[in-house]
Amino acid sequence: MTSSLDWQAIHAELTGIETITDPQQLTKLSLDYYHFSPILQPQLADKRADLVVRPVNEAQVQQVAQVCVRHKIPLTVRGAGTGNYGQCIPLMGGIVLDTTRMNQILWIKEGVAAVEVGVKMAAFDKQARLQGWELRMYPSTYRTATLGGFIGGGSGGIGSINYGQLRDRGNVYGARVVTLEDHPRILTLRGDEVQQINHAYGTNGIITQLEIPLAPAYPWAEVIVTFGDFLTAARFGQALSDGDGLVKKLVTVCADPIGGYLTALQEFIPPGQSCALLMVAESSLDPLEALVKDYGGTITYQKRAQEAQKGTSLAEFTWNHTTLHARAVDPSLTYLQTFYFDLERVAAMYEQFGDEVMIHLEFLRVAGRAIPAGLQLVRYTTPERLGAIIECHEAQGCAIANPHTYILEDGGRKVIDPLQLAFKEQVDPYGLLNPGKMRAWGEKFDRK
Amino acid sequence: MTSSLDWQAIHAELTGIETITDPQQLTKLSLDYYHFSPILQPQLADKRADLVVRPVNEAQVQQVAQVCVRHKIPLTVRGAGTGNYGQCIPLMGGIVLDTTRMNQILWIKEGVAAVEVGVKMAAFDKQARLQGWELRMYPSTYRTATLGGFIGGGSGGIGSINYGQLRDRGNVYGARVVTLEDHPRILTLRGDEVQQINHAYGTNGIITQLEIPLAPAYPWAEVIVTFGDFLTAARFGQALSDGDGLVKKLVTVCADPIGGYLTALQEFIPPGQSCALLMVAESSLDPLEALVKDYGGTITYQKRAQEAQKGTSLAEFTWNHTTLHARAVDPSLTYLQTFYFDLERVAAMYEQFGDEVMIHLEFLRVAGRAIPAGLQLVRYTTPERLGAIIECHEAQGCAIANPHTYILEDGGRKVIDPLQLAFKEQVDPYGLLNPGKMRAWGEKFDRK
Repeated sequence: MTSSLDWQAIHAELTGIETITDPQQLTKLSLDYYHFSPILQPQLADKRADLVVRPVNEAQVQQVAQVCVRHKIPLTVRGAGTGNYGQCIPLMGGIVLDTTRMNQILWIKEGVAAVEVGVKMAAFDKQARLQGWELRMYPSTYRTATLGGFIGGGSGGIGSINYGQLRDRGNVYGARVVTLEDHPRILTLRGDEVQQINHAYGTNGIITQLEIPLAPAYPWAEVIVTFGDFLTAARFGQALSDGDGLVKKLVTVCADPIGGYLTALQEFIPPGQSCALLMVAESSLDPLEALVKDYGGTITYQKRAQEAQKGTSLAEFTWNHTTLHARAVDPSLTYLQTFYFDLERVAAMYEQFGDEVMIHLEFLRVAGRAIPAGLQLVRYTTPERLGAIIECHEAQGCAIANPHTYILEDGGRKVIDPLQLAFKEQVDPYGLLNPGKMRAWGEKFDRK
Repeated sequence: MTSSLDWQAIHAELTGIETITDPQQLTKLSLDYYHFSPILQPQLADKRADLVVRPVNEAQVQQVAQVCVRHKIPLTVRGAGTGNYGQCIPLMGGIVLDTTRMNQILWIKEGVAAVEVGVKMAAFDKQARLQGWELRMYPSTYRTATLGGFIGGGSGGIGSINYGQLRDRGNVYGARVVTLEDHPRILTLRGDEVQQINHAYGTNGIITQLEIPLAPAYPWAEVIVTFGDFLTAARFGQALSDGDGLVKKLVTVCADPIGGYLTALQEFIPPGQSCALLMVAESSLDPLEALVKDYGGTITYQKRAQEAQKGTSLAEFTWNHTTLHARAVDPSLTYLQTFYFDLERVAAMYEQFGDEVMIHLEFLRVAGRAIPAGLQLVRYTTPERLGAIIECHEAQGCAIANPHTYILEDGGRKVIDPLQLAFKEQVDPYGLLNPGKMRAWGEKFDRK
């Protein structure tokens, strides 16, 4: 598709914008953590952008959009490339728009912030905390990931035990979006309109700015609790999540032997132990201790907030990072993403699959209730077996957000989002944005 | 019991402590809002203390305790007397200990505060907010009620939609308590130990100081939403309570015709309308508006935080104050306190009782879930009919915290708390503290 393009003319039209054509850089800036999946690995390994651009402001984004529309160049938007499903991998070459130079914090006031799309989340939090605020939720890639990448390709994370997911009303207030129409416009989306571009993999507009609500900042203590028995650890996780008087930000529970893969934490998770990795407000440490006692757990690690800031945060061993660390030890491992909804299903799946599917739970709020979800570690054998494991979970009422697909609708959503499709029809009439990712579009237009 | 006492000697032993014997004052300082209940009214109307003392510090409390033990004088502790079940009404005369002169804030730091027992909640909040914090929960009597009274005789209130109830682990950190042993001691209770005196009506120790965790302060906007249909209003209330992305502090829903009793709000609640009275963070007003639209409600009143601070807070029309305002219009009304647990039961009770039991819902968190509870207004006829209404609710799975009894165990708890009984045996061996209120004690000792 892209070989017929007049790249010399294109480069000329991109004057003033940083461009990258070095092959090694193109490789690095075309890929993400898709290799977590042995299914995606062969499908995506050879995908490359022809060119990467790094605009520094919205005007340059608009300029890039104009060039792409004029030449009908596929355009894929990229944050820090920390996703795991190839969200930002350009399936059809073309231009990758790297947002990381648009990283200004525009303002922070009274619990709301406006930022440029490429701001790194940890950098943002550092500023916000000076005013007593912090991000409501962030992924385990918080130190490098961008806020725009999280909203475009993520769903929830550390903090979701309080605020649910990004999709929940009230967690994103506004966005500015550049369109890929003949004359690219800048649209301002507010409130529910933001759902049009929320978790849409950049298929329907280039987000340039975001307005987000914040959470009050707490000094977060970090705690590891170990348990001789996984299901007791899971019940403890549920009780902590349901403990209305305890202030927390992270409730992770890993079945034995997952602790063994967290090399840096080995001394705190003895072999044979299941563990909970927690972030709780310092002022909730006393009631936490009482709860731990109720469930017969052992606190093996405890850092107050100030101390915790110095090293690697426990958060970096949770959510997708658990998988990252495990795969560093055993690259044959892969993972799933599962809503169990209740502990009965957790117990059933634990019993059924044993060590083939090592359960890693993340508790989060869904429609007002704290539920166990999970990013299980799977001892991978064949695509068929992986499919069978997924089917078995679904048959028992679990919901799997399949991380082994780069298709938007085949992941967590399962269904076509008519809102997002309609918005794409409006703002990307030529289907240039991240082509091949939104199945609804392909079915409606590409196959005509 | 008290007529045989040597009051002259007692007065002499109370030297240095403010005492009150004026009959009008004794009446005022012996009673509370027990008259909400036509059952309690005749039982309690004539109960009087012989003497009221107003200690200014813990040493004076200890002095009072010593005098009471020496002379075997009943001692009933009182905050501002804003309870509704006669919690602080002295059934057997004796001394009432008014805590309102012990009202110092000892310290506020990093989301935790230590206070003297008699601090008024609104006064405390004013100070705490200067540091960015506020009370996690408070009753509708917030302007006059004391923190100690709330913990001794209350259970939850405005803010319980986030933090659950006072009884939930982590909502009270510590207490100092003066005993009524032969040599009164000062005990320090921490963590779970506090449950011994939490909601014990002052039957097992005189609380002198409290350590409590706080909530981050938000600028709370106040909003009234009206609905043509009560059950839609109730569903809206549940959805707002379950909306993880919306920050709120109060979700009250009143069926028509309750709005008509809220005289000061009449212009905002047209006849025939059910209403929701809300406190939400200013930054959540936009997503709230979207939610209101989803449920077909009409926002008839909206004040930003700064404006709301000037007049009477909407909170003062909710929780027990709804009953207060309704009874000001129609003193024949009384009330119930009900955990419906889900909207199906709300609908069933709404259909069954119609206007005889006008439903006033307060949403609050119980074990991690937002549930509808209520303080219904009841058109009172006879004790038998009131009993039948309670029975009918219980038969359908509602839990009634009966407000028509002054007996600790017959209210919300239903069962004897062995912890509180054991603590009373230890610290009040002569059964002098608020005698007649803890049934377990009476059964064990008084009837021997």
